[in-house]
Amino acid sequence: MKLLPLLCLSALLVGCGGEQTPPNQTAGALTDEQLRTAAQLRDEMLASNVAWEVVEDLTTEVGARMPGTPSDAKGVEWMEQRFRDLGFDKVTLEPVEYPLWERHHEMANVVAPFEQPLAITALGGSVGTNGVLVAPVVYFATIDDLQAAADEEVAGKIVFINKRMEKTIDGSGYGPVVAGRSGGAKVAGAKGAVAVLIRSVGTDSDRFAHTGMMRYDEDIPKIPAAALSNPDADQVERLLQRGALTVSIDISAGFTGTYTGHNVIAEVTGSRWPEEVIVIGGHLDSWDLGTGALDDGAGVAVTTAAAHRLLSEDARPGRTIRMVAFANEEQGLIGAYAYAAAHETEIAQHFLGSESDFGAGRVWRYDTNVSEALLPSFEQIFPILEPLGIERGGLESGGGPDIIPLQQLGIPVVRLSQDGTDYFDYHHTANDTLDKIDPEALNQNVAAWITLVYLASHIPAEGN
Amino acid sequence: MKLLPLLCLSALLVGCGGEQTPPNQTAGALTDEQLRTAAQLRDEMLASNVAWEVVEDLTTEVGARMPGTPSDAKGVEWMEQRFRDLGFDKVTLEPVEYPLWERHHEMANVVAPFEQPLAITALGGSVGTNGVLVAPVVYFATIDDLQAAADEEVAGKIVFINKRMEKTIDGSGYGPVVAGRSGGAKVAGAKGAVAVLIRSVGTDSDRFAHTGMMRYDEDIPKIPAAALSNPDADQVERLLQRGALTVSIDISAGFTGTYTGHNVIAEVTGSRWPEEVIVIGGHLDSWDLGTGALDDGAGVAVTTAAAHRLLSEDARPGRTIRMVAFANEEQGLIGAYAYAAAHETEIAQHFLGSESDFGAGRVWRYDTNVSEALLPSFEQIFPILEPLGIERGGLESGGGPDIIPLQQLGIPVVRLSQDGTDYFDYHHTANDTLDKIDPEALNQNVAAWITLVYLASHIPAEGN
Repeated sequence: MKLLPLLCLSALLVGCGGEQTPPNQTAGALTDEQLRTAAQLRDEMLASNVAWEVVEDLTTEVGARMPGTPSDAKGVEWMEQRFRDLGFDKVTLEPVEYPLWERHHEMANVVAPFEQPLAITALGGSVGTNGVLVAPVVYFATIDDLQAAADEEVAGKIVFINKRMEKTIDGSGYGPVVAGRSGGAKVAGAKGAVAVLIRSVGTDSDRFAHTGMMRYDEDIPKIPAAALSNPDADQVERLLQRGALTVSIDISAGFTGTYTGHNVIAEVTGSRWPEEVIVIGGHLDSWDLGTGALDDGAGVAVTTAAAHRLLSEDARPGRTIRMVAFANEEQGLIGAYAYAAAHETEIAQHFLGSESDFGAGRVWRYDTNVSEALLPSFEQIFPILEPLGIERGGLESGGGPDIIPLQQLGIPVVRLSQDGTDYFDYHHTANDTLDKIDPEALNQNVAAWITLVYLASHIPAEGN
Repeated sequence: MKLLPLLCLSALLVGCGGEQTPPNQTAGALTDEQLRTAAQLRDEMLASNVAWEVVEDLTTEVGARMPGTPSDAKGVEWMEQRFRDLGFDKVTLEPVEYPLWERHHEMANVVAPFEQPLAITALGGSVGTNGVLVAPVVYFATIDDLQAAADEEVAGKIVFINKRMEKTIDGSGYGPVVAGRSGGAKVAGAKGAVAVLIRSVGTDSDRFAHTGMMRYDEDIPKIPAAALSNPDADQVERLLQRGALTVSIDISAGFTGTYTGHNVIAEVTGSRWPEEVIVIGGHLDSWDLGTGALDDGAGVAVTTAAAHRLLSEDARPGRTIRMVAFANEEQGLIGAYAYAAAHETEIAQHFLGSESDFGAGRVWRYDTNVSEALLPSFEQIFPILEPLGIERGGLESGGGPDIIPLQQLGIPVVRLSQDGTDYFDYHHTANDTLDKIDPEALNQNVAAWITLVYLASHIPAEGN
């Protein structure tokens, strides 16, 4: 904190220095003027229209953006043009190569005891059924129960895993359930099952199946994997309570080659330490079923709007703000790992990373994971966030999915945690559309982001 | 009211006679004992499981029941068996003949400015597109605006009618919007349009299109008609705000012949005037997209449960209760007209008619449309309904869709009006499934129905 005396001298407002510092705590290095500017930017952004325009235009003019599809390419083109139109200092594309997974069609029916359709969607990465697969269904409450089952209970059958997701503000219900989605086909395939159906990883009771990525092991037979909508999972559960159940599944999907997409990057050049960067952003890709409004058009829009405001002379950041619209988050953070690999040699110049990728609910908590030396300055940011209805969270935060590869390389991260209570009602479904975004909540996000980004960009680094 | 003195003599409870009668109002003919029995039955039914079992089993073991489909036939078989299992005094099937409309497939895409899928469903009765139809879209806020348009604005185009439905407790938002659904193809076809797309007649913002019946005129070209889900209607609206829009539609659907379905009828024989009947019920058919839980599995279940309870000696009705599970309500009250035609010669023996067909929301209002002479007795029913949270409504009620043909023949009707605030979120969509029914609200319905039916069955007729 060696700059503190100098900063105190330059501060125009009262209260700088030891009097504001609680006992046993080092004072932060942000000046009152910087804090005041951030508060002004925060309040201004509550009435901005930029984020809404970005997410409305993206979801309307492009729609869904599944990795490797023509819509994905259109999305990249659209994003690059929008960054240029918004006047960013520098706009670049960086290639991201990945296996191309395609969904052609998917349907399922109860065949016996009486025919009726089931609403399903293939999980990302699933193989197809090679025509219509017909088999009896065997029930498991959880993937652990499946794991414990004897092979002969499962062989030749369609495995149904019925675990329900709990609704929580922080999405903590997701982890315990997603194992069945990502790993169900491995476990079932090893026991000789012919397919796996899971209850959707979602908190709604609407007739939309939730897609999402799944994985195979190379040495285990690859069996098709799909999700049932929650009402259809209820229906299968009730039918099984009444006796034997036979289901037909017809899925055409699979990996068909390699595709090169792009991370789309826009910068606001820093005024003090331009060679140092703060990486923010969201992911530009989405699943194919909805239009990717909540996941993650909103995150791209919020961070773009915040970064865009910092282009003005009255709000210039200290460091360079690097806004990344990541490619292919959905199928394994592929754009994020590509970014980290491409920038590994300059990793020391990355001061901070944070992504917005949890829908469009209000930011309700400010979580950090920075060095002890920097923490007092990051604590100074909190009182400016607090009027937005934000609580101070913990010190061991992640920075969002696409920040994981950077955090693994040692970069400090923060998270503006969003209220995700309803997020998993829509996540990875056809119902993820623009009407699910509340414009006021979106702007509360922009206000929080500009506060964070502007102030963090002015925190002197430990060596500065 | 000539029986009044006798009934007063037979009443076991206090308060019978003039003291309870407000000035200028004739006293009702129901006895205090009858009112007390009704109140007991009412309270008992709040804890009954019969209605839930009926609607759960029907929607699980049969599922959707679109008129003329194998599921419709299965539904009739199921209903007949359930009536027999429940021990009704008499169970009969009556044939109902109608044109068979089939839905094979339906899809739509934005073609230009950029390809993206649209969630649609063909309207009931629509012709198909005969392959893929591609045309520009022309916007109308309402069917009246379309009516006022010059032919050259419309010719060769896909007409889009964007009228939104308002959410209300009594479904009063439905009427003003449904004209576009039922009549849009006539008006657009007369002006040379190639197809019509309407904003769904529904109050949700979910990606489900709402189907429902439409009509052609014989002397106007028949053009395909489909509904867009509300988020997709928003999307089309936004795309049109940005410029020209071309859409492709591929619908295979149409009338393919004649089918004979059945009204399924179960009776509880009256103890006093068995030749006189009260017709209650719901419609057994549904649209094909959901499982017909709210529309109208719930109505069938509620009225079945109420009638079933009256089979016991301690609750025998005065008149015969005729529970009708009507065929093909959805495509034009066809089962209802068949019932009225089949029973026209005995219409004078129909004392009352009432149907439950507005979902599974709580009954909130008691509406009547009976003779002045009978009204005081029907007023006696209200205080027994009131503890269920029910208000007294008007005197010019209908009795429900399938009661219309009977009311046209002069039969008195009442309505136990349900809270339909959320009904049109699910109406005629894939999302009309069992999970949308609140078991407590369902039983409140049963409680109201048994109160009404038991007491009405004991009201002396004007000539008795």
